[in-house]
Amino acid sequence: MLRLDERRLLGGLAELAEIGAIDGGGCARLALTDEDKAGRDLVVSWMKALDLDVRIDAIGNVIGLRAGAEKLAPVMTGSHIDTVRTGGRYDGNYGVLAGLEVVRALNAAKLVTRRPIAVAFFTNEEGARFQPDMLGSLVYAGGLGLNEAYAAADKDGSSVGDELRRIGYLGPAEPGTPRPHAFVELHIEQGPILDEEKVRIGVVESVQGISWTEYTVTGVSNHAGTTPMRLRRDAGYLAASVNVFARKLAGEMGGHQVATVGALSLRPNLINVVPNRAIFTVDLRNTDEEKLKEAEARVASHVATVAQEERVEVAAKVLARFEPVIFDAALVDRVEHHARTLGLSTRRMPSGAGHDAQMMQRICPTAMIFVPSVAGLSHNVKEYTEAADLLAGAQLLLNLMVELASED
Amino acid sequence: MLRLDERRLLGGLAELAEIGAIDGGGCARLALTDEDKAGRDLVVSWMKALDLDVRIDAIGNVIGLRAGAEKLAPVMTGSHIDTVRTGGRYDGNYGVLAGLEVVRALNAAKLVTRRPIAVAFFTNEEGARFQPDMLGSLVYAGGLGLNEAYAAADKDGSSVGDELRRIGYLGPAEPGTPRPHAFVELHIEQGPILDEEKVRIGVVESVQGISWTEYTVTGVSNHAGTTPMRLRRDAGYLAASVNVFARKLAGEMGGHQVATVGALSLRPNLINVVPNRAIFTVDLRNTDEEKLKEAEARVASHVATVAQEERVEVAAKVLARFEPVIFDAALVDRVEHHARTLGLSTRRMPSGAGHDAQMMQRICPTAMIFVPSVAGLSHNVKEYTEAADLLAGAQLLLNLMVELASED
Repeated sequence: MLRLDERRLLGGLAELAEIGAIDGGGCARLALTDEDKAGRDLVVSWMKALDLDVRIDAIGNVIGLRAGAEKLAPVMTGSHIDTVRTGGRYDGNYGVLAGLEVVRALNAAKLVTRRPIAVAFFTNEEGARFQPDMLGSLVYAGGLGLNEAYAAADKDGSSVGDELRRIGYLGPAEPGTPRPHAFVELHIEQGPILDEEKVRIGVVESVQGISWTEYTVTGVSNHAGTTPMRLRRDAGYLAASVNVFARKLAGEMGGHQVATVGALSLRPNLINVVPNRAIFTVDLRNTDEEKLKEAEARVASHVATVAQEERVEVAAKVLARFEPVIFDAALVDRVEHHARTLGLSTRRMPSGAGHDAQMMQRICPTAMIFVPSVAGLSHNVKEYTEAADLLAGAQLLLNLMVELASED
Repeated sequence: MLRLDERRLLGGLAELAEIGAIDGGGCARLALTDEDKAGRDLVVSWMKALDLDVRIDAIGNVIGLRAGAEKLAPVMTGSHIDTVRTGGRYDGNYGVLAGLEVVRALNAAKLVTRRPIAVAFFTNEEGARFQPDMLGSLVYAGGLGLNEAYAAADKDGSSVGDELRRIGYLGPAEPGTPRPHAFVELHIEQGPILDEEKVRIGVVESVQGISWTEYTVTGVSNHAGTTPMRLRRDAGYLAASVNVFARKLAGEMGGHQVATVGALSLRPNLINVVPNRAIFTVDLRNTDEEKLKEAEARVASHVATVAQEERVEVAAKVLARFEPVIFDAALVDRVEHHARTLGLSTRRMPSGAGHDAQMMQRICPTAMIFVPSVAGLSHNVKEYTEAADLLAGAQLLLNLMVELASED
């Protein structure tokens, strides 16, 4: 059996984590910032050191290709290296660096697979700076045109197109090429289930559908002491009431339904002034499209009811909307099979987070491998996965990739 | 009858409003900023042009004295010229400038009153930059020591003492001198009642008690997609639930109880991350101290309950706490009497907002005169009072001041 170099994998994660490092051991490498550019440059240098043919496409996705014995579609793995503002060091990075370790193991063994092997990292997976999230893989899969993607702007008005050019990652390759034979993404769970149940490998069958809406509420600012309650048109109250409603809704619906108000800003944001402006987001997810639609409809209905009662104006903007994705059943079975061959305990599960793999499923058979996140922490500087779990996931990826690369 | 110069009063308000002017016709002159200094310099120049003896005390209160025929305690009027970040042009400024027009009318008539007349503006009434609000008048009335007042710092760490020195308004006079014979503050209502009821003059009997608390909530940031609802420790949820509870509480208690969550910030404030930090304020007011205490206790109990359920830590900090104030009954009667003599309709009412007058009531008989605010708007760039109402209020102030200045 080919073996991975644990030291290289952990060392690479630590080195990449130094770029955009923040207090507590985390990373801030928002997509297409100077920190993201520095991270990209580092990973590209590693790809080149592994003799990969590095291709940068027009949306900044970077693909390192290792030639196969035959000119067939490659077997691809990968993920992303952008982070949220208070991100950890494993999310995304682990899948990309594990892919490079697969290549290193093949190089060390001087093994030429039948199909080419590709290791990719996709642009703006997190969506923390530009919406929609998973932008690079969505373009790669043909789900979003380049011009629309270029026009996406951050809150300061900088666009994806301008920022790609600025950091030198608007490349010549056409997104979507090469079209993979199969895609496998290795990732930390970012949730508590594997850690709680002491299971080593999550066999991911599906990805929850995601619905992100930003609400802009316009009320009337007024003196907090002199304005009777009945005359208030408090934009902040509507935002608060949606937060409380969303929590109650998720409880009532149960199952895989989650709901989060993560971002909120008030204006003028003063102790003694009724807010005349609230901008807030609602993040709804479910593995079942019909239930997700139900959750969206109930939140929208609540917003409309309270807006009328409070006499405030509300504008809703969909920032991202993805239906639940079901991964390739045969490939999912193979993930499970290889894990068991390695003696690793498994659990079938949906992914609660969005991943580039869900876009790739549109164009090729796709699956995902999860390893545990201690205490379920993610998008948090305390995000942590045990070295043994990181290595086990990468070894499983290696075995599966080699098998996939040998088939017709 | 002495008559006021309407053109001067309106012109002064307009000229002062140019300093720190913001879009929509409002003002941003936060206490002890460069804008506040420029406003102070302008009003001081007007005081000097009226031959007032200008005294600046050690907390930056400015008092312009017009000598009387006898060396008795002066009759004082005044208010403040600092504003909130999105303030109007009448709040505070109107009372100060009307006081100057009283002096101008006396000067024009070459009338020497028995008692001196004083026109004051007090430091940091709004509390938008430094807490507590009504800081200058509180120090003047002996309710807060100078060192404690100097130490109050804004969110950037700048202190009242340093900022007073920086803008040149840490003066030599001892706060509290002269101790007035009586104090009358003229102010816009900042609420909708006079405007709704088409009443010209509000005869203010009392000021609501004020309770300001800032809560800092610490939860755990985590991925919004992968964290089951039961495992969340969402700091933003607690903030939202307090906002909704406060609204419900005010409705249940009725009467003069109001409750506002005006300021709130979340961290990391990202769409797809459960907030691990929320800092928010609760503003509670009531004319009845026992009911205000009940409201405080019920909010605190709700905070404790939700904090336990959500497993978040909460630190509460009292930013300001003033008991309701009852103004001098005889002086309130005289406000009403003089208004009727001028043919102005009146309504007795409490003040929902805090005012410098409530501090002055600690050291001398005090009353307040309200004029209508169109649509009740205040702390808002659209704050507006009709010229006829501004003039009526100032004329009433003049008549009352002259009477007070003639008595033993």
